[in-house]
Amino acid sequence: MDLISDARALDAADALAERRARYLIPGGVIYLDGNSLGPASHAALAALDVAAREEWAEGLIRSWNAAGWFEMPMALGDRIGRLIGARAGSVACCDTISVNLYKVLHACLTLRPDRRVILAEATSFPTDLYIAEGVCAAAGARLVLAEGPVEAALSGEVAAMLVNQVDYRTGAVRDMSALSVLAQEAGALAVWDLSHSAGALEVALDRDGADFAVGCTYKYLNGGPGAPGFVYAAERHHGQIRQPVSGWWGHARPFAFDPGYAAAEGVKAFLAGTQPVLSMRTLSGALDDWDGVDMAGVRAKSRAMTDAFVRWVEALCPGLELGSPREAEARGSQVSFRHPNGYEIIQALIARGVIGDFRAPDVLRFGFAPLYLSFEEVARAVLALRDVLESGEWREPRFAERGAVT
Amino acid sequence: MDLISDARALDAADALAERRARYLIPGGVIYLDGNSLGPASHAALAALDVAAREEWAEGLIRSWNAAGWFEMPMALGDRIGRLIGARAGSVACCDTISVNLYKVLHACLTLRPDRRVILAEATSFPTDLYIAEGVCAAAGARLVLAEGPVEAALSGEVAAMLVNQVDYRTGAVRDMSALSVLAQEAGALAVWDLSHSAGALEVALDRDGADFAVGCTYKYLNGGPGAPGFVYAAERHHGQIRQPVSGWWGHARPFAFDPGYAAAEGVKAFLAGTQPVLSMRTLSGALDDWDGVDMAGVRAKSRAMTDAFVRWVEALCPGLELGSPREAEARGSQVSFRHPNGYEIIQALIARGVIGDFRAPDVLRFGFAPLYLSFEEVARAVLALRDVLESGEWREPRFAERGAVT
Repeated sequence: MDLISDARALDAADALAERRARYLIPGGVIYLDGNSLGPASHAALAALDVAAREEWAEGLIRSWNAAGWFEMPMALGDRIGRLIGARAGSVACCDTISVNLYKVLHACLTLRPDRRVILAEATSFPTDLYIAEGVCAAAGARLVLAEGPVEAALSGEVAAMLVNQVDYRTGAVRDMSALSVLAQEAGALAVWDLSHSAGALEVALDRDGADFAVGCTYKYLNGGPGAPGFVYAAERHHGQIRQPVSGWWGHARPFAFDPGYAAAEGVKAFLAGTQPVLSMRTLSGALDDWDGVDMAGVRAKSRAMTDAFVRWVEALCPGLELGSPREAEARGSQVSFRHPNGYEIIQALIARGVIGDFRAPDVLRFGFAPLYLSFEEVARAVLALRDVLESGEWREPRFAERGAVT
Repeated sequence: MDLISDARALDAADALAERRARYLIPGGVIYLDGNSLGPASHAALAALDVAAREEWAEGLIRSWNAAGWFEMPMALGDRIGRLIGARAGSVACCDTISVNLYKVLHACLTLRPDRRVILAEATSFPTDLYIAEGVCAAAGARLVLAEGPVEAALSGEVAAMLVNQVDYRTGAVRDMSALSVLAQEAGALAVWDLSHSAGALEVALDRDGADFAVGCTYKYLNGGPGAPGFVYAAERHHGQIRQPVSGWWGHARPFAFDPGYAAAEGVKAFLAGTQPVLSMRTLSGALDDWDGVDMAGVRAKSRAMTDAFVRWVEALCPGLELGSPREAEARGSQVSFRHPNGYEIIQALIARGVIGDFRAPDVLRFGFAPLYLSFEEVARAVLALRDVLESGEWREPRFAERGAVT
């Protein structure tokens, strides 16, 4: 089995291969953690420089008008919208995904005043559950966690069903269309967390009938560490969005300085306070790298990469158990393997320059971002993983030390 | 009256004068709008470069540990705390001021479960009122707006009294100590908005008995456009803070990935989602410029500057009516004058490179940031204002055009 030759053949046929030059990947690193924090691109850093050195330092307060800072949440929202199947005017870029989820779940409880349950998957990314718990406490509602298939727990009490489109641990993809229909047939609103799907899958919010969605831009969209979140509302809900974090950017007339609040039309009603311009401008540059990119091509490369990774690992690394769906179509752009010493193995891999991550209790997680990753890198990562396992170097005590974030 | 000579004498005696070299003030600009958006400094831009080009582009995901990103909210909070009289561990830097105020007012209603009124000044910065309105709607409480002195509206129903330490239009300073005592004697919690006082006044949160406070860092603290907000909780409330925007950064054990939420101790319970690292690092650099700065000296220069400005404008610019308190001690670091054509006059001044701003209906507003402004600039600004008025150039039609933000 000649991985490197196989990989080079795949690279030669890869229409996205030329995009890699846009990104700054450090020498000696194979980066399989773009599902956690995407890398910097030349366009992102250039946009940041303009924002800091021209718009801020030279333009000062005048840039609120001259540089369009105030319009950024909706302008960025439209650009993100193109990548997740949302029409213009239905996505706003703002705040964090946590704050946006808080606003969305409140809006759902307001749209379904006779229902007091928020339903979520027990396997959700934990902070989604913490936020849902907070909304429920504030709004006199109840959080129900589904241990099995979330749709089985739908009832006449459910106002909103919250689903992660891609499971952060296993990478399993949920069927947005089918689950949205089931939620709506039960009278509930379908809320989607796109953290691990935006920029990786052919997300089709409008087509698949989602009611609301939230997501982040620092993973596959490469917006930078802690880049702003986004929030989507289907057009049918525009004009009916009421949420309590009602700051001036979401006011119908923000510069009238009225003493009373009046919600803006559409998804703009989700805006609240003044947004971090430097972080938003960096994201704006990062989105330049997506101009002209066809999400079907991204998804096809993602499927091919995760397929190759699974095939190669299973051939060369006995002792690792696949923790993701075997069918590529049922996976996001990530693959998990399980091993009782997953933590140490990941640390040893990182020491070799292959960056993946670990999720408790035993998950080795690898992300595959089609815009900057080559098949040859994937093959070399597998060879490194094999060497780590065969040599037993992961048993060195230094690899067992725990940091705050893994 | 020789303004320039007077001003130069004042500059010669100014112990803060050497700080100006730290800031990038564009040529031909006299910047009297640092109370709205502070300028960039060399340290701020350098910190941003390190964050973007080293920590993000080179360090990638490893920087969460290696660069201390996860610790920034509390580390920055302590540095801000020194400037506003708050002990270490009682300020967190995060989110926007709007989101933080939302969290604080909720926490107050939880601390006073038998009281369902939030009291605020009718003249508050409007977005504070919008947020208070949102909290009240979500929590079944009622917002009462005081048209006169806010303390006169205290009652046994009031859970929280929200006061802007410096009025954004007039610059009038409220007495934090006296008002906090009155609120607490009535059984309410005293919540302070420091937007127009942090970095300008000798704020003394601990000494003056504030319960909670929020503020922003993009005005006098020069953190950059849309820089993160901050939130303060007096130590006596630590361990009792419950707020519903309960994201993983505010969890007692954020990396345990527990399905249930458990609030962190202290002010950390106000944290929610992943924070904008590039904006926070920029603020970190901006705070370097405050190292070694004594707030008493800042306040003394601020008083002297606003005094000189009022004296010079009243001598040279008949037709403008002082809209701020005449006593320097009763003013923040800003001065307002009123004129029926205030909008056009400000636009004409900006065209001459003197940047102040306008607030409806008739307020010309000028901010005086002691770290980078000289008395000679203040004098030259007054001469420009005199020329704009004497020449009548503000009557040119182009100065009546309205932009989105003024």
